[in-house]
Amino acid sequence: MAISKQEKVYNELCKQLKIAATYSSTQKLLEWDQETYMPEKGIELKIEQSKLLLELSHKLKTNTRLKTLLSSLIDFASGAILVEGFSEAQKANIREMKRDYEHHSKIPGSFIKKFSQTTTESLEAWKVAKKSDSFKTFAPHLKKIVSLLQKKAEYLGYKETPYDALIDEYEPGMTSKKYDQIFSPLKQKTLQLLKRWDEQNKKIDPKILEGDFPIEKQKMLCKEVIKDMGLANTTYNLSETHHPFCLGLYPNDIRLTTHFYKEAFMRGFGGVIHEAGHALYENGLPLATWGTPLSEPASYAVHESQSRIWETFIGHSYPFWKLYYTKVKQLFPGVFQDASIDDVYRAVNQIKRGLIRIHADEVTYNLHIILRYEIEKGLLEGTYDVKDLPDIWNQKMRETLGIVPKTNSEGCLQDIHWSLGFMGYFPSYTLGNIFAGQLYVSLMKTHTDWDKKIKEGDFLFIRDFLREKVHRFGRQYLPIELIERASGIPFSIDPYTSYLEGKYS
Amino acid sequence: MAISKQEKVYNELCKQLKIAATYSSTQKLLEWDQETYMPEKGIELKIEQSKLLLELSHKLKTNTRLKTLLSSLIDFASGAILVEGFSEAQKANIREMKRDYEHHSKIPGSFIKKFSQTTTESLEAWKVAKKSDSFKTFAPHLKKIVSLLQKKAEYLGYKETPYDALIDEYEPGMTSKKYDQIFSPLKQKTLQLLKRWDEQNKKIDPKILEGDFPIEKQKMLCKEVIKDMGLANTTYNLSETHHPFCLGLYPNDIRLTTHFYKEAFMRGFGGVIHEAGHALYENGLPLATWGTPLSEPASYAVHESQSRIWETFIGHSYPFWKLYYTKVKQLFPGVFQDASIDDVYRAVNQIKRGLIRIHADEVTYNLHIILRYEIEKGLLEGTYDVKDLPDIWNQKMRETLGIVPKTNSEGCLQDIHWSLGFMGYFPSYTLGNIFAGQLYVSLMKTHTDWDKKIKEGDFLFIRDFLREKVHRFGRQYLPIELIERASGIPFSIDPYTSYLEGKYS
Repeated sequence: MAISKQEKVYNELCKQLKIAATYSSTQKLLEWDQETYMPEKGIELKIEQSKLLLELSHKLKTNTRLKTLLSSLIDFASGAILVEGFSEAQKANIREMKRDYEHHSKIPGSFIKKFSQTTTESLEAWKVAKKSDSFKTFAPHLKKIVSLLQKKAEYLGYKETPYDALIDEYEPGMTSKKYDQIFSPLKQKTLQLLKRWDEQNKKIDPKILEGDFPIEKQKMLCKEVIKDMGLANTTYNLSETHHPFCLGLYPNDIRLTTHFYKEAFMRGFGGVIHEAGHALYENGLPLATWGTPLSEPASYAVHESQSRIWETFIGHSYPFWKLYYTKVKQLFPGVFQDASIDDVYRAVNQIKRGLIRIHADEVTYNLHIILRYEIEKGLLEGTYDVKDLPDIWNQKMRETLGIVPKTNSEGCLQDIHWSLGFMGYFPSYTLGNIFAGQLYVSLMKTHTDWDKKIKEGDFLFIRDFLREKVHRFGRQYLPIELIERASGIPFSIDPYTSYLEGKYS
Repeated sequence: MAISKQEKVYNELCKQLKIAATYSSTQKLLEWDQETYMPEKGIELKIEQSKLLLELSHKLKTNTRLKTLLSSLIDFASGAILVEGFSEAQKANIREMKRDYEHHSKIPGSFIKKFSQTTTESLEAWKVAKKSDSFKTFAPHLKKIVSLLQKKAEYLGYKETPYDALIDEYEPGMTSKKYDQIFSPLKQKTLQLLKRWDEQNKKIDPKILEGDFPIEKQKMLCKEVIKDMGLANTTYNLSETHHPFCLGLYPNDIRLTTHFYKEAFMRGFGGVIHEAGHALYENGLPLATWGTPLSEPASYAVHESQSRIWETFIGHSYPFWKLYYTKVKQLFPGVFQDASIDDVYRAVNQIKRGLIRIHADEVTYNLHIILRYEIEKGLLEGTYDVKDLPDIWNQKMRETLGIVPKTNSEGCLQDIHWSLGFMGYFPSYTLGNIFAGQLYVSLMKTHTDWDKKIKEGDFLFIRDFLREKVHRFGRQYLPIELIERASGIPFSIDPYTSYLEGKYS
């Protein structure tokens, strides 16, 4: 059968986007290298390399030839699809290509370069600032970033608040107003529950998880859980960084990192389960359409739902600890002292009013997120000033978690995100938890023997459920639609809050 | 003072070349990553990334705009420099820019892409072949590479043999005939000396260097010697690979690798001294002119002279072991058993008829090189066939070193070079030793208290001598002229052979 003219155009588009993605993946390798093995002074070259690569991929993504090609497949004004005989997935791909084209062409190349240079420098400043607890080292950089992000919001356009323009980059279709509607009841609910749980917590001894854990052995434990989760060791690298992350260069080349703590194996281990959840999503995206929206994650919240379902819903579950209680004991003789599985399970799930987001339990975690959400909204709308950040932070900590950090390193300097220019990203974490709640309920219904399987070390049904229901679709559906289809449950915070209430009561 | 038109043209050239170098340095990072941390399946993406980057830098280096700019500074037909008021260094830079332009524009972009893909695949095949001792796994790849290199030689042009075209890429000005004139007496001399030394060797117990050396401690020892040599830890990364190497992405970002052997610390340690010698050269190239020939190493032999002067002339010297005997003992209690410094010094310098080039002593090393030189010449000229390689290899080993490998992994599959398409490179190793001989004699004359300084841990005078005499000139002089100027000695193998005779008699 002869290939139609429209198919030719579509193939040409995919080819161009694949080239742009090849540049972007190289750019990601540069980022990974900066965080892992680059010597300190390598930053000078890195800035130049990043600028060039970003420029190249931006040029490709905003090339007018792309618009010409796309225009014969989709009407730019109405969004009506003009093709015949294309699959639903291909049509969605065209719709998302148009969305990307419009997004990218709103932002001038000169801005991209400036933003890249600013954030590369600011990342280095943040590292120094955090290490030396010096907010004033980071403040001028953050000020620049806020001002650049405000400019970006103007380029992108928005209806109600500049923050919406940024949110939409991470969560297509979401707005600050929608987040308010979700976060407000969630915050209330969490604060209520937290008070109730404070009493119970006194009975838990978190010391049973502490000890002396050689890093090499911690690495072995992490590689074992990654294997159990079903990520092939030919497709990932695990390195150590200050801040754990996962970067998918390509479905078969995923860079995971974690931070090991000699005295607390759960931090590195939990971090790896989280990042490996992200990695499985990247790994499950279809190879055949790589470079196009069909092989891209649906959103940051959907991504986070994949890491959180593994990290907390599975990795903190009772059957998981039935299995890993023994595995951990074999690797670290003397660990857990005389504590039973039940004690360990309770310690792993302890709810604690803590300072650090990445070490937070699954209940207080959302309070950390909502605090950041409120702050970045204020910064972008101009109601908060960068110079007041430490005070605002500490006041909000007092109001919600009832504790105040002694240093800014444990306060407003703790996260890497703002130094990289990520604002609008944090709320996706909590939305991801809510998505995970929906997926979890559906997974449990589909696999009623789930706890038996996990206890026996069979995790592949989870990986395959998520691949089948979420990963393989890429950006074919908008986030909320994707999760509704995957879980069969209309969007709601209820499955998530019910799960929390059920687990901790 | 107003900037002249010619200066503007010169600056524009430097700017363009800096962009090309930024792409090349990114390409180098990809290579480094492939050898260090890339997961196995990452190779699929890596091939695409490499092809794109090579294409970009090749396009820039062969851009006709470059020729237009250059033509106003240098006459392309005669090579006469047309500029006024330029420094000698700048004039040399223009001469070398022309040389590069002519070189690059002879090779079609399509060839570069094909060559890149072939070698990326062949590298992976070589790894498998070496691991499984399967020459037939590698043979078809090597055949393709030889045929591509023959084609490359035709593109580049040559007078007497296609091998000359490849040699010239590594050693500007060298030819196969010139190498024959150097290698023939060196081979004779070495074989004579070797017979004489066989007797002495029986008295040495190499077992005193063996033991159980934890990798983490070996790394510490390596970092200590790198520090002693004067390479700042903000400018390099040391990782582990199968085959040690040094890649300078930029004077301040140098990637060193080594291979640690648990039972023999000298291999990893000696390897690191060697690679750090290369690294110091990269680190000593001028930053201000980065991207242009003035900031590029003069040749592969000059590069090798820098690694070998550190590895063998210094790193195997008596005063060095006066210092490191104690350092090694402190780190590895019980090492060397009851052996004295003299015993250790003799064991480190033992001459041995061995199979593996990278583990060879400084005397037999050149026999390994000359063997490879003869073979690649034969392959390129068509007098040898790839399928006969194992036989040819083994016969030559028997004739020179008097031993024959039991496996091809220890024979013709041992080196990475051919799998990467490097032919014409090996002879630079021995030329580098000869250069190092000249530099060493001059260094000793300049610093008559050299042995006292080394014993006391002061190595910086060596680094600074090499920086001052060699590194800072980049490609301002052709290799032999550079070494003659640096050492004050006309080119000759005598300083090198005298050093060997003196040391081992």
